[in-house]
Amino acid sequence: MEFRFSHRMHCAPPSFLDRLFAVSKDPEIISFAGGLPSARFIDLEGIRDAATRVLEEDGRDALQYSTTDGYLPLREYISRRYRRRLNLSIPPEQIQIVNGSQQCLDLVAKIFLDPGDTVAMERPGYLGAIEAFSLYEPVFRDVALLPGGPDTGEFSRVIREARPKFFYGIPNSQNPSGQTYSPDARRAVAEIIRDSETLFYEDDAFGELFFDGKPRPPVAGLIPGQAVLSGSFSKIIAPGMRIGWICAPPEVIAKFNCAKQAADLHSNFLCQKILSAYLETHDLDSHVRRIARAYGENCRLMCEILDDRFPPGLSHTEPEGGMFLMVTLPPGIDSHRLFEEGLSKGVAVLPGTPFYACGGGESTIRLNFSNVDEEQIKEGMDRLSSAIRDLAP
Amino acid sequence: MEFRFSHRMHCAPPSFLDRLFAVSKDPEIISFAGGLPSARFIDLEGIRDAATRVLEEDGRDALQYSTTDGYLPLREYISRRYRRRLNLSIPPEQIQIVNGSQQCLDLVAKIFLDPGDTVAMERPGYLGAIEAFSLYEPVFRDVALLPGGPDTGEFSRVIREARPKFFYGIPNSQNPSGQTYSPDARRAVAEIIRDSETLFYEDDAFGELFFDGKPRPPVAGLIPGQAVLSGSFSKIIAPGMRIGWICAPPEVIAKFNCAKQAADLHSNFLCQKILSAYLETHDLDSHVRRIARAYGENCRLMCEILDDRFPPGLSHTEPEGGMFLMVTLPPGIDSHRLFEEGLSKGVAVLPGTPFYACGGGESTIRLNFSNVDEEQIKEGMDRLSSAIRDLAP
Repeated sequence: MEFRFSHRMHCAPPSFLDRLFAVSKDPEIISFAGGLPSARFIDLEGIRDAATRVLEEDGRDALQYSTTDGYLPLREYISRRYRRRLNLSIPPEQIQIVNGSQQCLDLVAKIFLDPGDTVAMERPGYLGAIEAFSLYEPVFRDVALLPGGPDTGEFSRVIREARPKFFYGIPNSQNPSGQTYSPDARRAVAEIIRDSETLFYEDDAFGELFFDGKPRPPVAGLIPGQAVLSGSFSKIIAPGMRIGWICAPPEVIAKFNCAKQAADLHSNFLCQKILSAYLETHDLDSHVRRIARAYGENCRLMCEILDDRFPPGLSHTEPEGGMFLMVTLPPGIDSHRLFEEGLSKGVAVLPGTPFYACGGGESTIRLNFSNVDEEQIKEGMDRLSSAIRDLAP
Repeated sequence: MEFRFSHRMHCAPPSFLDRLFAVSKDPEIISFAGGLPSARFIDLEGIRDAATRVLEEDGRDALQYSTTDGYLPLREYISRRYRRRLNLSIPPEQIQIVNGSQQCLDLVAKIFLDPGDTVAMERPGYLGAIEAFSLYEPVFRDVALLPGGPDTGEFSRVIREARPKFFYGIPNSQNPSGQTYSPDARRAVAEIIRDSETLFYEDDAFGELFFDGKPRPPVAGLIPGQAVLSGSFSKIIAPGMRIGWICAPPEVIAKFNCAKQAADLHSNFLCQKILSAYLETHDLDSHVRRIARAYGENCRLMCEILDDRFPPGLSHTEPEGGMFLMVTLPPGIDSHRLFEEGLSKGVAVLPGTPFYACGGGESTIRLNFSNVDEEQIKEGMDRLSSAIRDLAP
């Protein structure tokens, strides 16, 4: 039969994620292309102990159906951590557990976007968000992300003229660029949002991973009634559990809960309980510091090599945290040709184009530094430098 | 601020599920209203052993990101079981793992429905499906579900005239009615679908739970290129893991995979691995037989009490399996008034109205018999009978 798919399925951009995952499994290739956190910081022993404890103490309950909003002690932990780390007051009732922060992207789009509505985001912006939003058939507008935050002139113009339903941004160590909003940019963005009908959707997947260990106050804290804030345990505990969360004003969290229930009733309860048991008995602060320190060393090494041993005409971002940096290639080098040339030399990078919701980015690549070690960085960057030289016009 | 929610959120029917879950936690109330499988058939020890094994043998891998389609050995197990139990040939590439079969409802709707498209389903039909589909703003058509299957005249008329994108049905021990399609009805439905542009969406959440232990061949097996078939481990292993699956033709599974990736990247990998390890070392057949036998005893007891000790003018379905039966109340008794009267007497039942996508069902209630024991059935049915007598005009 001829399948009559919905119109939205023709709006889906071609996906890179599964191809990347395949590349990441080839042992011959050093991959800077993926987005995996380092497996060596998964506290296997701690999680095993927590799993044993949960299955011994309240096993049947952990394996039964549960409520849509999520396991209350886990939401209480998240609430307490916001207060302690960021001095934010977010009660557990305003927190909903989801399947990793990717599910927030789908459900926020679902509760806000009708076909043809405008959604605004950073240029470049997170490709998983572009993929999720696209299925709700919006019109994309983008705003340049500069080293200290969005171009505020452009931001103000887009918010005022296009009246987007929401602006999606990652103020802390953004994926793909690694850029972080400055304190001034946070205030400016909050001011502009406050004067508008637009919701600020703040994705904070990387806020725990600043190399200097210091938290940056969320934009959502400046405009709590006009923002949603998502977080994730994927980058700091274990992505395979698929546990993230969203914080939102009461009226929004109610709609979100309704959409979550229709989507899959609730997130897997066993992993929520294991995670909660783990967090009760482990010091997340020191765990996160170890991760951030290691990622910081990798990032600095990668930046040094880019500065010292790459052809001239290339520039790169200077991340303060997170897992990614972005390179702008010397004139005349196309990132997709570099992707192929890199693979032939045994190094994978990610072309920047899928991160540009409104087109562009042909001369950019994203480099991941979380899932490689010092030797792999040195060898992989050598291969990459050689690939760029070979492609130079 | 005034939130500008999408139009679809105004299409969401008011939800019963969380209210039911709250009722099910009140120890004073005997609940026939919920949809929980019996916790005593959750093989806690077996799952604990499997979890320990997974976390000892390949822990870091189980906690890392994975592919969208799902853990291959688990999909291979599902494929082998279809061949052995039902003589169906469904390769693992045509199976996608999801967060319980509820997520299939959302994603099938997402890939097929544009606003205003027609979707057809049984009358009564599964309320979780009505909730999930509603958010895609379809026009609902329904077809009477009689004791042996859908009214084929009405089915044929609806498929021919309304050309629904898909027909959603539960041929085995349907939720809410407990009805099962006869072999003749399966053939008739397949014939009508084959001559149409409509996809058959077969939800088989209860096919393992026939009281006589005998499988019934899926409708999808008669029209493999024109059907999707979903299944779930929730009713036979443990719902808290949120693991189900969908089988679909290659072109459909590709779109489904795209929608799944945008929705949440992949289902929780740790639970997929635990489940797979559990299934490798446990005999699912004998486990399922024990569950079905116990549910069968409960169902027979409930039916006997309905026949022998309830006021005249009441009728009920005669399930061959599953977890639910449906009662049509004596004339003049409204199910919502009975819901309140029942609660005041310490018994919870579920009014039938939310199961009617196009309205109706005011004189019906759904009774769950999986999550109660013999004493609770006797006492709860006494309370219910008394509530009905009190409401008699």
